[in-house]
Amino acid sequence: MKSLQIETASLSYPVFIGGGIRKNADELLSSLDLPMTKLLLITDEEVDKRYGEELLNLLESKWPVKKVAVPSGEQAKSIDMFMKLQTEAIEFHLDRSSCILALGGGVVGDLAGFVASTFMRGIDYVQFPTTLLAHDSAVGGKVAINHPLGKNLIGAFHQPKAVVYDTECLGTLPEKEMRSGLAEVIKHAFIHDEAFLHELLKIKSIDAITNEQLNDMVYKGISIKSAIVSQDEREAGIRAYLNFGHTLGHAVEAEYGYGKITHGDAVALGMQFALFVSEKVLNCPLDRRQITSWLKQLGYPGEVKLDTSTEALISRMLNDKKTRGGIIQFVLLDRIGSVRLHSFTAKEIERWLNMWRLEGGE
Amino acid sequence: MKSLQIETASLSYPVFIGGGIRKNADELLSSLDLPMTKLLLITDEEVDKRYGEELLNLLESKWPVKKVAVPSGEQAKSIDMFMKLQTEAIEFHLDRSSCILALGGGVVGDLAGFVASTFMRGIDYVQFPTTLLAHDSAVGGKVAINHPLGKNLIGAFHQPKAVVYDTECLGTLPEKEMRSGLAEVIKHAFIHDEAFLHELLKIKSIDAITNEQLNDMVYKGISIKSAIVSQDEREAGIRAYLNFGHTLGHAVEAEYGYGKITHGDAVALGMQFALFVSEKVLNCPLDRRQITSWLKQLGYPGEVKLDTSTEALISRMLNDKKTRGGIIQFVLLDRIGSVRLHSFTAKEIERWLNMWRLEGGE
Repeated sequence: MKSLQIETASLSYPVFIGGGIRKNADELLSSLDLPMTKLLLITDEEVDKRYGEELLNLLESKWPVKKVAVPSGEQAKSIDMFMKLQTEAIEFHLDRSSCILALGGGVVGDLAGFVASTFMRGIDYVQFPTTLLAHDSAVGGKVAINHPLGKNLIGAFHQPKAVVYDTECLGTLPEKEMRSGLAEVIKHAFIHDEAFLHELLKIKSIDAITNEQLNDMVYKGISIKSAIVSQDEREAGIRAYLNFGHTLGHAVEAEYGYGKITHGDAVALGMQFALFVSEKVLNCPLDRRQITSWLKQLGYPGEVKLDTSTEALISRMLNDKKTRGGIIQFVLLDRIGSVRLHSFTAKEIERWLNMWRLEGGE
Repeated sequence: MKSLQIETASLSYPVFIGGGIRKNADELLSSLDLPMTKLLLITDEEVDKRYGEELLNLLESKWPVKKVAVPSGEQAKSIDMFMKLQTEAIEFHLDRSSCILALGGGVVGDLAGFVASTFMRGIDYVQFPTTLLAHDSAVGGKVAINHPLGKNLIGAFHQPKAVVYDTECLGTLPEKEMRSGLAEVIKHAFIHDEAFLHELLKIKSIDAITNEQLNDMVYKGISIKSAIVSQDEREAGIRAYLNFGHTLGHAVEAEYGYGKITHGDAVALGMQFALFVSEKVLNCPLDRRQITSWLKQLGYPGEVKLDTSTEALISRMLNDKKTRGGIIQFVLLDRIGSVRLHSFTAKEIERWLNMWRLEGGE
């Protein structure tokens, strides 16, 4: 087992990473020295089938625990599910010294974390991520639910007290989910670590990823993210770097309709477009054709669907949380590991986007 | 106009106090140096009738403003109203640099503050309190909505960027609301300032309170509360002192049914009981009979309704956010201005409560 200490302005917490470590969850939790009068274990129905009972049984030997499984998928991040979990917490008599555990991917982490951040004005929570994508959401303290008008619009900053990352859980993920998570790993390499990117470029297919590579990806991805977040907990400055590939990515996700494209596939598209703009505006010397063909080889899309209009994507970008006063901020690279923030008008982005799409996404 | 600077661990903000200062709201807000790309002015229907348009017109000359009035009363602190306000915020295109203004009493402040704390993970907000009771909720950063199973169970700590307290608004309050607010002023005097308590004891009726006295009450009440909160933003220690009179008070409010008794009337009962226990346990040398008769003269109740069972009140106390592991914490006085925290079992409190009620609340 490896462990990392995440430092933020408001507190510091450990991330434990290793294959099979969920089986020591009771000892790991005990080592945190939290009051934990009661535990509310929140998971989703799919993850529950694999790991729910096992973890529940382990924890019940030490604490009063209630397990609640929400439906799998993004639709669980709703105000109704949020209220249902609040009700469960009250009826199980959680108090201010209790702890919420989130067992699952990013959806469960975001939802359970937002419940923890608001129940009695905030109680402890600990994350048990079960997907590769969750390496990203497990660090940074961002928790949220969705509003019918937009993703993650209602939320808070609430740091977990610990993250217990059992990479054995990732071995059973479908290829689609692995690819989705890998996109954020690739993003972290692009913005911070050229050597790591070169390692990743050696991966020729998703199902050839070894356990050792997985452990390394989670460790490096989290290290990079935490290095950035620890300098900027509330997203005032360099945390914006993490948005590389996300401005177009979020717009594509919203415009296709949530669930129609994975987060990672949308981010992969967004990164390709950001590299295109980086080349045009900053003369970034990357071989975009090589990267695009590698991404396609791994199964990522290489271009936005033809029936999606550029105007609709621009309009989505203008509604993004990060957009202010009609100016769209883009994260660009002047080379791997060297980030530049650049502001564009909607007109300028429209021009670049049309140009990129005419090139067939290359 | 007087002003106070509230210092908390996470930030510092001004409270402006004076008669008629709402008419300078535009200048006061400008002086804060906040980005304020847009303003969402949240008020309630009653307050809106008096001050809504006036404030809206004043602000519209400088910023894009949208005004939303929620129904008056505690029922507005619901998850449905919370979502309605989130929708208004999104549809008015508030962004992360926008600001929410809360014009009204504690309900509006709590509700608008919780919306501000969660909209896009937290944006600025400024309070314009219009009641005496709000002097209490305007300091401390506690924001919340109610769950059907309990008051203020869903919330956050989110400090305002400023409080603009126009005491002229208090002059038009009904006597019942003035009395409710005065109870918290009396509480602040009990826990912190003997000389202030002696001044308050000179008040012979609610409608004889002068504007000058009102200004003084708001100023001293806020000073005391902020002195305590600044030392303990997240309620780990001495902030519990502010709970004087509230353990029984909250139980009475919940058991009578919200709206059946004002918060201040319930707290006045709770303070009388806390003084009784303080006398029995700590030999607090206060003349309880004099205080009870003064409170009754001002119109506060002197005893809990006969048809309310002691068991039901104890059960409410056990469900309080501050109760942990079945132990009920009480705030007692060994003399005016000198607080002691004391833990009791449910059995012990039941015995004291029965004894106090047999004495006819004296």
